[in-house]
Amino acid sequence: MKITQIVLASRPNGLPVLENFRTEEKELKSINEGEVLLGACFFSVDPYMRGRMNDSKSYAASYELNNPIVGACVARVIESRSPGFTIGDFVVGYLPWATNSIAKAEALRKIDTHLAPLSYNLGILGMPGLTAYFGMTEICKPKAGETVVISGAAGAVGIVAGQIAKLREAYVVGIAGTDEKCKLLKEQFGFDEAINYKTLQLTDKIIAGICPKGVDAYYDNVGGEISSSVFANLNFHSRVAVCGQISQYNRLKPAIVPTILPEILTKSILVQGFIVGNFSSRFGEGFAHLTQWVKEGKLKYKETIVQGFDKLPEAFLDLFSGKNLGKMIIEVG
Amino acid sequence: MKITQIVLASRPNGLPVLENFRTEEKELKSINEGEVLLGACFFSVDPYMRGRMNDSKSYAASYELNNPIVGACVARVIESRSPGFTIGDFVVGYLPWATNSIAKAEALRKIDTHLAPLSYNLGILGMPGLTAYFGMTEICKPKAGETVVISGAAGAVGIVAGQIAKLREAYVVGIAGTDEKCKLLKEQFGFDEAINYKTLQLTDKIIAGICPKGVDAYYDNVGGEISSSVFANLNFHSRVAVCGQISQYNRLKPAIVPTILPEILTKSILVQGFIVGNFSSRFGEGFAHLTQWVKEGKLKYKETIVQGFDKLPEAFLDLFSGKNLGKMIIEVG
Repeated sequence: MKITQIVLASRPNGLPVLENFRTEEKELKSINEGEVLLGACFFSVDPYMRGRMNDSKSYAASYELNNPIVGACVARVIESRSPGFTIGDFVVGYLPWATNSIAKAEALRKIDTHLAPLSYNLGILGMPGLTAYFGMTEICKPKAGETVVISGAAGAVGIVAGQIAKLREAYVVGIAGTDEKCKLLKEQFGFDEAINYKTLQLTDKIIAGICPKGVDAYYDNVGGEISSSVFANLNFHSRVAVCGQISQYNRLKPAIVPTILPEILTKSILVQGFIVGNFSSRFGEGFAHLTQWVKEGKLKYKETIVQGFDKLPEAFLDLFSGKNLGKMIIEVG
Repeated sequence: MKITQIVLASRPNGLPVLENFRTEEKELKSINEGEVLLGACFFSVDPYMRGRMNDSKSYAASYELNNPIVGACVARVIESRSPGFTIGDFVVGYLPWATNSIAKAEALRKIDTHLAPLSYNLGILGMPGLTAYFGMTEICKPKAGETVVISGAAGAVGIVAGQIAKLREAYVVGIAGTDEKCKLLKEQFGFDEAINYKTLQLTDKIIAGICPKGVDAYYDNVGGEISSSVFANLNFHSRVAVCGQISQYNRLKPAIVPTILPEILTKSILVQGFIVGNFSSRFGEGFAHLTQWVKEGKLKYKETIVQGFDKLPEAFLDLFSGKNLGKMIIEVG
C-alpha cells in the first residue's frame, strides 16, 4: 500500500525549522508472521525528541537522516499476523511518522479503550504521566505542607506532576509562559499559585515572595534562568528532579549561569536527573496509580489537539514557543 | 587563671586577612559541677570555618564578632568536676581558640590514645575522615573498575576519600595544586593518576584523556572551573558528592559557569550536597571502619603541623592558598 511519511531531511542548527523535515510517499511491503499493519490515529510530539535530532550522544539514539522521525503514537490495527491483536484493536507504541506502518507485536501495548480517551495514552496515561509520577514520588517526595515548584507547569508532564504534589497535600507553585496557562493551573488543576515568567521577570526575590517558607522540592522541566531563581530559594534537604531543560535544547552552547554547587553544598540539596526509562521495572505500578486517579477524577488532563498528519513538524516546532496547553497531540484525519 | 584567646575582630570581605583576627588576654572563671578545665594541645583549621565568618545563613551558625573562633581541638584535662574525666585524659571537641577553656563533659569525646597519634582525631579519625567515609560510601558508591575523580585530593578529606575508593577497587584520579601533592597522591596514597590543575589548564579534553572510560563518581571539594571540566565527562548514572567548594568560599558572588543541569538530565546524574552531620546517627559505624583501616595500614594519613597557638590565623589563611599537604594542624607549645 502507498503511505506518506515524514523524514529528517537535515539536522537542526539551534531552533528547528520546517526545512529540517521532508514529506515523502512510500510503498509499504506486506506484513510477516508476528507483525501487524497499523493506521496512525494520534501522534505525540515531545521536547525530548529535539535531542534525538542532534548527532551527539544522549540517552536516546539519534534519528538517522532521511529516515522517518519516530515518536509515540496511538494506532488502529488494520491487519494482523499476531494472535495477540485483531483488526480494530487500538495500540500505543513508538512508531514512524507515517500514515501507516508495520510493527512487531511485542513492541506494542494494547489499549483498554474504556479507561479514558485514546489520546490520553500519549499523555497522562503514557510516557509523560509516568515521567511525572516517578519524578514527583521518587525524587521530589513532597510531604504535606511542603512547598513544591514546577517549571513548565502547564505542559504535558508539569500538569500531572503538580496534581500529584497536591494529592500529597503540598503547597504547589507553577511557572508557565502565558496568563491563560496560569489561570488554568489555578482554576482547573488546583495549583496554589502560578507565575507567568514572561510578564514577571523571575528573580530570587520574586520566588521568595511567592514561596515564603522556601522551596522544598523543585520539578524542573525548563532550566536556564528560571532554575537559577528557584535554586536560590531551595531549603535545607530539598530535592530537585531534573526532568527537562527545554530552554536549553535549541542552544548551540549551554547557558552561562551562577554556579549552583555552593547552594547544593550548604543546603544538602539532592539533584537527580532522570528519564522515565530508569523506572521501567515499575511502569505497571505507575500506570495503575495514574489510571485509578484519572478514573476517580483526582487527576485531570488537558490536551492541545492539532488536526492533520501534515501538521506534525509544525506542532513539534510549536512546543518550543509554548503554543501547547497541556499535551500537544496531532490527530490524523 | 589567665588565658590567651583569638577572637573574630571583623568579618572578612572576600579572602580573610590577619586583621580579621585579634589576640586577647582573659581571666578564666573556675569550673562548675559537670565541667572540665582543658589545656589545648592541637587545633584543627578547616575550610568550612570560612562560611561561619560570614553574616549569612548557612549550615553552621555564624561566629559572633569579638568572640573567640570555635573549632575542633584535642585538649588535655587539667581539672575535672565530672566523673567521666580525670586529670591527664585527652579529649576532642569543638572548643574556642584559647590556650585553656572550660567545657561541659557531655560535649567532649575521650580519646583512646593507643589507636593513633592524638592529632589524627582532628583528621582521619575525626570530622574530615567521617566526611570522606560517608561521602564516598553513601553518595559516590564506587564499584570495582569504575573511575572516581576527587578534587582537593591532597587535602584532609580528599586523601581519605581517594584511599576509600581504592579499597573499593576503583580507578582513582586526584586533582591537586602542586607537583609535590600529585607525587604524594600516587606514591604514598595509591591514586592511579593525579593532575596538577595549576600547571595543566583543566579542560573537558584533559579530563577525557585521563579518564578514557568517563567519570562514574566525582567527590568535589573545590567547585568552579575544575568541576565544570569534570561534569562534562560524567557517565550515565554517575554520582557527585558535593563536599566542599573551596574555590568559592572567598568570592563575593558565585562564579559564572556553563549550566550543569542539561548534563545532569541527559545522563541521569545524581548530585548530592552534604555535611557530615547528616550522618550523625552513624558516626559510630564510620569511626569503627576508619579506625580498623588505620590499624591495618589500609588507610594512611598526612598532616602539616604548624607550631604555636599564635599561628592559628595564619594557618587558617594558608588553607586557601593550598599550603597544607593533608590535614592542617596547629600544635600548641
